[in-house]
Amino acid sequence: MSETVPRPTLEAVAERAGVSRATVSRVVNGAHGVRDALADRVRRAVEELGYVPNQAARSLVTRRHDAVAVVAAEPETRVFADPYFAQQLRGISKELTAHDNQLVLLLTEGREDHARVGRYLAGGHVDGALVFSLHLHDPLPGLVRGAGVPTVFGGRPDWEDDGGDVVYVDSDNRGGARAAVRHLAGLGRTRIAHITGPLDQTSAADRLAGFRDVRAGADPGLVAHGDFTPGGGERAMRELLDRCPDLDAVFAANDLTAAGALRVLRERGRRVPDDVAVVGFDDMLPVAEQTDPPLTTVRQDIEEMGRLMARLLLRGLDPRAADATPETVPTAPGTPGVILPTTLVRRASA
Amino acid sequence: MSETVPRPTLEAVAERAGVSRATVSRVVNGAHGVRDALADRVRRAVEELGYVPNQAARSLVTRRHDAVAVVAAEPETRVFADPYFAQQLRGISKELTAHDNQLVLLLTEGREDHARVGRYLAGGHVDGALVFSLHLHDPLPGLVRGAGVPTVFGGRPDWEDDGGDVVYVDSDNRGGARAAVRHLAGLGRTRIAHITGPLDQTSAADRLAGFRDVRAGADPGLVAHGDFTPGGGERAMRELLDRCPDLDAVFAANDLTAAGALRVLRERGRRVPDDVAVVGFDDMLPVAEQTDPPLTTVRQDIEEMGRLMARLLLRGLDPRAADATPETVPTAPGTPGVILPTTLVRRASA
Repeated sequence: MSETVPRPTLEAVAERAGVSRATVSRVVNGAHGVRDALADRVRRAVEELGYVPNQAARSLVTRRHDAVAVVAAEPETRVFADPYFAQQLRGISKELTAHDNQLVLLLTEGREDHARVGRYLAGGHVDGALVFSLHLHDPLPGLVRGAGVPTVFGGRPDWEDDGGDVVYVDSDNRGGARAAVRHLAGLGRTRIAHITGPLDQTSAADRLAGFRDVRAGADPGLVAHGDFTPGGGERAMRELLDRCPDLDAVFAANDLTAAGALRVLRERGRRVPDDVAVVGFDDMLPVAEQTDPPLTTVRQDIEEMGRLMARLLLRGLDPRAADATPETVPTAPGTPGVILPTTLVRRASA
Repeated sequence: MSETVPRPTLEAVAERAGVSRATVSRVVNGAHGVRDALADRVRRAVEELGYVPNQAARSLVTRRHDAVAVVAAEPETRVFADPYFAQQLRGISKELTAHDNQLVLLLTEGREDHARVGRYLAGGHVDGALVFSLHLHDPLPGLVRGAGVPTVFGGRPDWEDDGGDVVYVDSDNRGGARAAVRHLAGLGRTRIAHITGPLDQTSAADRLAGFRDVRAGADPGLVAHGDFTPGGGERAMRELLDRCPDLDAVFAANDLTAAGALRVLRERGRRVPDDVAVVGFDDMLPVAEQTDPPLTTVRQDIEEMGRLMARLLLRGLDPRAADATPETVPTAPGTPGVILPTTLVRRASA
């Protein structure tokens, strides 16, 4: 008997090409969403090592199940309480149903369950995954990539390493924030404060960056930390008024935060918008219409984000479907993400 | 070559035994939840026909994926808006997570998607299914049984044909309704009305049956139809007051209905409970505590229903696990269902 030579593995190809296993898997299986330069490196490594994809594993990957997983890096209790997530899910559900794909929502109780989600994704039960990864240092995106299924992320993931082939859909958080702050400056306001969201989420970090783009030299005392909740908005607004009683405008990182800020402003006898102008972010209804006064805010199309995530994934899975529906998808130049535009909605608060 | 004799199929066994394919599948694969008499008939048919289970198909069925599907016969928009479903899902999620099983929620846009759900369940992606089938004549239960995966239903399914081996978890809707009406009678009320739920749901039908158990000879004018919503409760309450202005008590099929009825009673100048006593069903919080006056109601443990559904399914999948956790499960004598008790919660309305 001749000596058994170990077959080169997917891991060996990934190491030689300097990319993730998921990237090798995608290139080998002809999936879309890998940059040309990266794909070339993978093909070279495949050739040099004489790698032959495992047929069984490959058929598991290429066999269509007509099913797509949706994974949220949040416990199920929060997923169900979050109108934002429900709206994205609505967009996803409509798009998947229109293409007769089953929506498979994978729920967890917390981070300790994410390894099990990774196993399910790797088990050949779905064709791809849509992942909401909102927090920095979350292990979920890595687990999903390790599972080797095509994936589209909702919201910009925070990792930049080897992330060149990551497809994601996000709103223009930074540009929207800039528009909000410019609007306040255009009203003649000179002491503009910002209440941030939780800065372990890229959406909040990007909105703060947008604020700083316009107010580069602003007094650091004009920035207070919130957490995307009305209670956080109240606390931050009190802090701001104590520190900077002469402030004349507030850009709140989301509408719920703005609602809390408005309550404190009223409590302290400040007229909105006369004394202090307020702008929110999201255009979350009915909140934004029911504040007193109704809220000027930055609108993002949350349902459309979900729909687009599903569409991008389905296109990657079946390029013919993409040809059949020649519709323009806005892409951000120089990034692998699709960034949806935001619009300022003017109501009474600014 | 000898002539090929067609191998007896699962269908042939099912036909000879006079049971569903799912029942044959469960008996052949050693799953629990099939009554002895039925299981004997299946084994006899297997012997008589010389049926040999297809090994590949069998391994698909017996291989554990450590994943359980949850299927709701409602569009995703209603699933997410329904606090009742969210509570059941919480119980399911906790129990599955405790046993390291992945919760796979299969969402749909409507009935036309149920065939796809059936295909996914039959595709070997989950070990079993938990199905909420609330409406009469729903094709979903049949599709799930056809898929041949062990299943536990949430709520009593309406079909009685060949349903002897169906495992379900429900609340004691009929007994709870009887307790509510007896409580009103015990207060000396003699003109007791009932506002029903949508009678295409077994829970609503069972509550009406409980009302009739106690008030067999009641004036038919004292029953009005609602739909489990506050608006439906308002409409039904107006009808009742127009028809029977002398009524002195109302048993509403759920708390939301009762909340609507209370509004109309106040509007018409009736004092609660002095003029009209009101009892609801569910003990849905915060609704039941925040009505004016706070609502006397029949409490059911919704989260526990979900937990029990998951536990019964996991036990059927792995009998050893059942031995390891010797916990009493209340079963309704003479039925394959598990009926959880209800309790009357007294507040101010009756």
